[in-house]
Amino acid sequence: MHFSSKLLEQAVDEFGRLPGIGRKTALRLVLHLLNQPDADVNRFTASLNNLKEHIKYCKTCFNISDLETCEICATAKRDHGLICVVEDTRDVMAIENTNQYNGVYHVLGGLISPMDGVGPSDLKIDALVERMRNEKVSEVILALSATMEGDTTIFYLYRKLKEFNIHISTIARGIAFGGELEYVDEITLGRSIATRVPYERNVG
Amino acid sequence: MHFSSKLLEQAVDEFGRLPGIGRKTALRLVLHLLNQPDADVNRFTASLNNLKEHIKYCKTCFNISDLETCEICATAKRDHGLICVVEDTRDVMAIENTNQYNGVYHVLGGLISPMDGVGPSDLKIDALVERMRNEKVSEVILALSATMEGDTTIFYLYRKLKEFNIHISTIARGIAFGGELEYVDEITLGRSIATRVPYERNVG
Repeated sequence: MHFSSKLLEQAVDEFGRLPGIGRKTALRLVLHLLNQPDADVNRFTASLNNLKEHIKYCKTCFNISDLETCEICATAKRDHGLICVVEDTRDVMAIENTNQYNGVYHVLGGLISPMDGVGPSDLKIDALVERMRNEKVSEVILALSATMEGDTTIFYLYRKLKEFNIHISTIARGIAFGGELEYVDEITLGRSIATRVPYERNVG
Repeated sequence: MHFSSKLLEQAVDEFGRLPGIGRKTALRLVLHLLNQPDADVNRFTASLNNLKEHIKYCKTCFNISDLETCEICATAKRDHGLICVVEDTRDVMAIENTNQYNGVYHVLGGLISPMDGVGPSDLKIDALVERMRNEKVSEVILALSATMEGDTTIFYLYRKLKEFNIHISTIARGIAFGGELEYVDEITLGRSIATRVPYERNVG
C-alpha cells in the first residue's frame, strides 16, 4: 500500500493490529474517523484511554467493573452459593442476557492452553479455590467453551474442586434450539444421542 | 447487551459507531485493547489524535498529505499536464499501486449525490476548473466509480471541462482480467460487447 502521509500510515498500522481488521478495513476506518468532527474523534480516543486507566476487576469474581466489587457480587438478591465459572467477561454478558441465571460468577481470564503458553497459574484458579474455603458455596457450574482448551480446564478444575463438599456441574451440550438436525456436526449429534434425556426433563 | 462497566460500555459504543463494526465486534476489539500493555493503547489513541490534528490536504490536488504540497504534486518526474480525477485518497492509493500512471491527481472528496445531499459545491470542482486555467493541462482522466453517483459526477465534470482545450477521458470499463465470463453481470457483459475493441489494441 502506498500512503501519501506518514500520519495516515501510522494510524492504519495501529488499526490493522486489531484482531480481524485487515489493512483495507483499517484504512476505511481511519478515513471515516478523519472525516468526523474533532470532538467525535477526541471522544473516541478518550473513551479508550479512560477505560484503560480506570477499569477495575471485581476483587471477588474478577469480572470487569467500575468498582472494587462488581454489581453482581454486591447485590444480596443473587444466590452467592452458586458460582458460575466462565472464561471472560463476554461469557458473563452472554449468560446475563439469558435472564436464566441468579447466581454469581468467577471469571478465569482465559483457558488452560499449553499451546499458547497459558497454564493454570495464569488463571484465577487459586482465587476460585479460596472462595470454596471462605464462602458457603453449594454448587459450581463450569460454563466453559466446548473446545479442547475448555475441556482441559474443566478437567483441571474438577480435580481441584472435588475435595470440597459441593455439586460440580457443566452446562448442557447438544443441538441448539432451532437447529436443524441435518446441519449439526457429527460429533455433537452423536453425543446428543448418547446423552439423550427423558422427554419429561426437556419440557420441564 | 448487559455491561458490567460504564467505561466498557462507552468504549464499545464508540467503536460500534465505526462503519461496518457491530456491537459484538466492538466488544471484541475493546476487550482486546484492554488486554494490551498501556503503551500500546496509548500509541493507538495517539496515532489517531496526531492524524486528526496534523493532517493536511495538498493545496493543489487535495490529496491527504503531511505537507502543504503532496509528494506527487511536488515531484518534477510526474507529468503535470495529465490530471487523474478521483473520488478520494483510497483511489489515489489504488492507482499508485498499479505503477501504471505517471500523471498527477485531483481528489474531489466525494461524488455528486443528491440523495445524500452532496452537491457540486461540496466537492473540489471549482478548484479543478481553476487548475485548467492556471496549469498547462493536456488531458483529464475521470477515474470515478462505475455507479450512478460516479456517472452523474462524470457528466457534470465533462460539461464543466469541455470548454477548455483538453482531452477528457474516462477509465476503460469491461470485464475484469481473470474474470470468468459466466460470472460477469449482464450490464457489464452487454456493454463490453457493445464497446468491443480491435484485438490489436488489447494486446498492445
